[in-house]
Amino acid sequence: MSTKIYKGVIPPVVVPDTDDHKLDVVSFERSINRMIDAGVNGLFFLGSSGEVVFSTDNRRLQVIEEAIRIVNHRVPVFVGIIDTEVERVLEHGRVAQELGADVLVATAPFYALGGMAEVEEHFRILHDELDLPIFAYDIPVCVHIKLPWKLLAKLGAEGVLAGVKDSSGDDVSFRYLCQENEKLGHPMTLLTGHEVVVDGAYLSGADGSVPGLANVEPAGYVRQWRAACAGDWATVKAEQDRLNEISHIFDVTKGVQGYAGGVGSFKCALHLMGIFDSPQMPRPVKPLTGENVEAIRKVLVDNGLLEA
Amino acid sequence: MSTKIYKGVIPPVVVPDTDDHKLDVVSFERSINRMIDAGVNGLFFLGSSGEVVFSTDNRRLQVIEEAIRIVNHRVPVFVGIIDTEVERVLEHGRVAQELGADVLVATAPFYALGGMAEVEEHFRILHDELDLPIFAYDIPVCVHIKLPWKLLAKLGAEGVLAGVKDSSGDDVSFRYLCQENEKLGHPMTLLTGHEVVVDGAYLSGADGSVPGLANVEPAGYVRQWRAACAGDWATVKAEQDRLNEISHIFDVTKGVQGYAGGVGSFKCALHLMGIFDSPQMPRPVKPLTGENVEAIRKVLVDNGLLEA
Amino acid sequence: MSTKIYKGVIPPVVVPDTDDHKLDVVSFERSINRMIDAGVNGLFFLGSSGEVVFSTDNRRLQVIEEAIRIVNHRVPVFVGIIDTEVERVLEHGRVAQELGADVLVATAPFYALGGMAEVEEHFRILHDELDLPIFAYDIPVCVHIKLPWKLLAKLGAEGVLAGVKDSSGDDVSFRYLCQENEKLGHPMTLLTGHEVVVDGAYLSGADGSVPGLANVEPAGYVRQWRAACAGDWATVKAEQDRLNEISHIFDVTKGVQGYAGGVGSFKCALHLMGIFDSPQMPRPVKPLTGENVEAIRKVLVDNGLLEA
Amino acid sequence: MSTKIYKGVIPPVVVPDTDDHKLDVVSFERSINRMIDAGVNGLFFLGSSGEVVFSTDNRRLQVIEEAIRIVNHRVPVFVGIIDTEVERVLEHGRVAQELGADVLVATAPFYALGGMAEVEEHFRILHDELDLPIFAYDIPVCVHIKLPWKLLAKLGAEGVLAGVKDSSGDDVSFRYLCQENEKLGHPMTLLTGHEVVVDGAYLSGADGSVPGLANVEPAGYVRQWRAACAGDWATVKAEQDRLNEISHIFDVTKGVQGYAGGVGSFKCALHLMGIFDSPQMPRPVKPLTGENVEAIRKVLVDNGLLEA
Repeated sequence: MSTKIYKGVIPPVVVPDTDDHKLDVVSFERSINRMIDAGVNGLFFLGSSGEVVFSTDNRRLQVIEEAIRIVNHRVPVFVGIIDTEVERVLEHGRVAQELGADVLVATAPFYALGGMAEVEEHFRILHDELDLPIFAYDIPVCVHIKLPWKLLAKLGAEGVLAGVKDSSGDDVSFRYLCQENEKLGHPMTLLTGHEVVVDGAYLSGADGSVPGLANVEPAGYVRQWRAACAGDWATVKAEQDRLNEISHIFDVTKGVQGYAGGVGSFKCALHLMGIFDSPQMPRPVKPLTGENVEAIRKVLVDNGLLEA
Repeated sequence: MSTKIYKGVIPPVVVPDTDDHKLDVVSFERSINRMIDAGVNGLFFLGSSGEVVFSTDNRRLQVIEEAIRIVNHRVPVFVGIIDTEVERVLEHGRVAQELGADVLVATAPFYALGGMAEVEEHFRILHDELDLPIFAYDIPVCVHIKLPWKLLAKLGAEGVLAGVKDSSGDDVSFRYLCQENEKLGHPMTLLTGHEVVVDGAYLSGADGSVPGLANVEPAGYVRQWRAACAGDWATVKAEQDRLNEISHIFDVTKGVQGYAGGVGSFKCALHLMGIFDSPQMPRPVKPLTGENVEAIRKVLVDNGLLEA
Repeated sequence: MSTKIYKGVIPPVVVPDTDDHKLDVVSFERSINRMIDAGVNGLFFLGSSGEVVFSTDNRRLQVIEEAIRIVNHRVPVFVGIIDTEVERVLEHGRVAQELGADVLVATAPFYALGGMAEVEEHFRILHDELDLPIFAYDIPVCVHIKLPWKLLAKLGAEGVLAGVKDSSGDDVSFRYLCQENEKLGHPMTLLTGHEVVVDGAYLSGADGSVPGLANVEPAGYVRQWRAACAGDWATVKAEQDRLNEISHIFDVTKGVQGYAGGVGSFKCALHLMGIFDSPQMPRPVKPLTGENVEAIRKVLVDNGLLEA
Repeated sequence: MSTKIYKGVIPPVVVPDTDDHKLDVVSFERSINRMIDAGVNGLFFLGSSGEVVFSTDNRRLQVIEEAIRIVNHRVPVFVGIIDTEVERVLEHGRVAQELGADVLVATAPFYALGGMAEVEEHFRILHDELDLPIFAYDIPVCVHIKLPWKLLAKLGAEGVLAGVKDSSGDDVSFRYLCQENEKLGHPMTLLTGHEVVVDGAYLSGADGSVPGLANVEPAGYVRQWRAACAGDWATVKAEQDRLNEISHIFDVTKGVQGYAGGVGSFKCALHLMGIFDSPQMPRPVKPLTGENVEAIRKVLVDNGLLEA
């Protein structure tokens, strides 16, 4: 099972909601096509910013079905099968593989407290009982466990894990992982989820990125990846600098935190840019309004993504 | 909707699994009946120690159905409807109320990051769209948010919350909540989930307790509650001292953490005492073995719960 | 070395500063005498709320000298010798014992990361090289290490520690410690630092309390301790309820955090009550002003500590 | 006051102790000269790994005096003036500037809880009352506060801060800081303290590094810096890969944590390499022994720093 095809820019797809909280299929198709046309190398559905934990099982099913229909084999489809513990994760995994996903992405167990013995067993069970490549999603800010790089490397070497999506905020650990993976013959695809430090991650040896901001500006991340492949580090850095200016949509808002500010700013921007018909957020989160919208509009205008 | 009936000892029911990970209905019935016979005032199913996050939706359904059949109106049935975000929680809530639960218990949202605006809206939606009394389950060790006592008091005064199960480990906050609830006319039932400090919580004005250890030794908690109602604080304290000696089943184990050591020690003890047919744990957690079992056996023997 | 004398209410003494950041000896004497006259059982200088980490070595010396002069053997004098690591703590300890302190109070090491081996060795060195009884000050919110009750009990049984001041916020751990200390023959004096849950701590078997709020209202804590000694738990609880109403000086302020709000509210209240000539705070902290002062005034008036 | 001279590799100097815990001046001189001869661009004394918080005031004085004598103006001397709160930090700062330091390095206040208002005021006081350039040392793992990049940029623009040593583990924040500093005209020197991800930091625009591992292998970091200045990113990355192999001295030890494992492994390596006469650690920390020494020896041998 080659992982060589899973390289490059694989955005976590932000999901558009209608005002009455249904999946907005038209906007979804528009946004997916825009990213594929820009040259992304894959798409990751039902990640943290893809509303996975907000979605009922029926909604997850609908997102996967529409995603696979729209993508139509143009790029590989990664599907998040995120849930609290392994029996529930397995259920999501079986649905996703039946519907035609290419890769399954799972976090460590969460809510119940445990140790690394349980984390390791969790990924082994997923590998044993599912048929697709499993990527570990390392996101301690949500899961409250950091996956140790030595454990990840071991599971990669044994074929349990096909890759890692690193949203750990721990660049030291990620760099060790990249280096160890290389020494082991590169069994895993290693992707950074930290969209504002992709340049450093590529220099470290990352195989690609999962930048939420690529929903807003996919072309920049695609150019950056191609520059990295060519060893043109000055361009890699310059593209990052430009993307980071756009990323200030995250920090110009006031009075909102977490998902409301993060994914909220993506949806606000996509709505302003005419890609999403509504900035609606999943309950109990509210969309950004008023001055926060204007602040995001200014960032988009200043960076040439929107006319004044 | 009176909350006066929800007082006293309401154990979070530990769920017995067969060796092949099915619900062991015979052991479940034995344990539930033992607690009711001991005089508990209610039972809480699908709490953190009731394997809620380990259970698929089908398994949750089965646990509730069997619980309601076995309890058969002898005591009120509390059901945990714990999941990541509100649409998923609502689905569990609708199932539980249809099956005949008396009270629904929900945590704050988890996994996705948010602020108190989202937490408040979450509980308001649950209250608006479900028909049963809602208890807030304050368990930051799992959910990674502490519910502020001022927010809880406000939601209680408005009738959004009927009660709180406090597993926050924050006795200062709980004491303020008890005092404020009293000043507001006692709209909420306030239960402590910290089984080794129930004496202090009762003195603080708690309406009851949700002690996991009552699965192992319900009679002691029942005597303690009755002493508290009678204002016999020396007995309240003495019962707690005795229960705490039994609670060392939590800390005599080695090499295990979190759920494996906590709920694992309950299941091990219940197995040794002949109440559970198996100490099996939900995957990926393993049951306690070897020296850990012997250490727990010794605690039970030393405290008269098992013959040597 | 008997620890029996160290029981009851031992307030951590708040230090008055002049507007130009000198020790205000007159206010200091007024406040100390007021607490001794109210019947407190000891006084703790240079604790966290006693500006210990804000004070230069010269200022610490001056505080101890004045404290010992003013107290003049009426009650035992506890002195905090808090610093980052053991050689520095030893220096403070030698000064304090030379000046006539009765008990030395030390935290675990902080700033540098370590484990329990270092914590244990730290307290052993203090015990070996200093001549006075050593109390461990368990304050993870400042030190970022929780002292495990099993380690504390072991060090107590061996005579390394003469007592513990618990500001850990972990009532479960404190209750286990009290119970274990009793089983060991009560070698240690166990004091709670959590002023709003002293009632529960006394019921748990605490030997006394170190309530910052006793700077503002010593008489209530003294009455509460006497009621606890008499086994009159209803009064213990009622006094706590009243004290907690006064404690809202902590949470009626806005726009301030940590020390500025906590010790700041004490100084503000003592200034309003005419005990401190100035509400000045140590740099870089600013005293409370404006609406925050008015909010605290209202709490004091509502609770009969100040005329309207 | 130009900060342009403060660029490149500025190791935090590890301090050798004699077996009886005195400063080992001979080893200190040997190690300092070795680093200067290798071409480092500055030296940072009394940083976290320079035993600052373990050192009494007399010991700090001795370290600074010997450092300045040995360095003898060959490279700039950075001195850590780390202590809990501002009056104490000022005292250390006055001593260091009198003795001839070039730059003073201070953390945020610690132990007492506070907010950003206090942090900002703290750095302003240091700037106002001391005469040397002030670097902010961002080390939340010790100080438990993360310095926000927007605050740092503001203080840099105003001339309050001359630089930042970033040991925050937050590469996202550091990258934003570098980018903002550039937009502001580069008023601050920005140094990364994360020795295993220096390559990414240089690509991000860092002005230099403060790598503890340069005590063990200064030449590699010097070559890496020169490659970065030349825009030879392949070499920057390759040098990092090699250095990271050496850095496994940190993680081959067992049964030790924090300072004992981190600085302990440096001292062990320097002792094995004949640079330090003793691996002694400051009390209460113990030097590495037995299998841990052998594991570190193996890393050094495998990487050509020691003969087999």
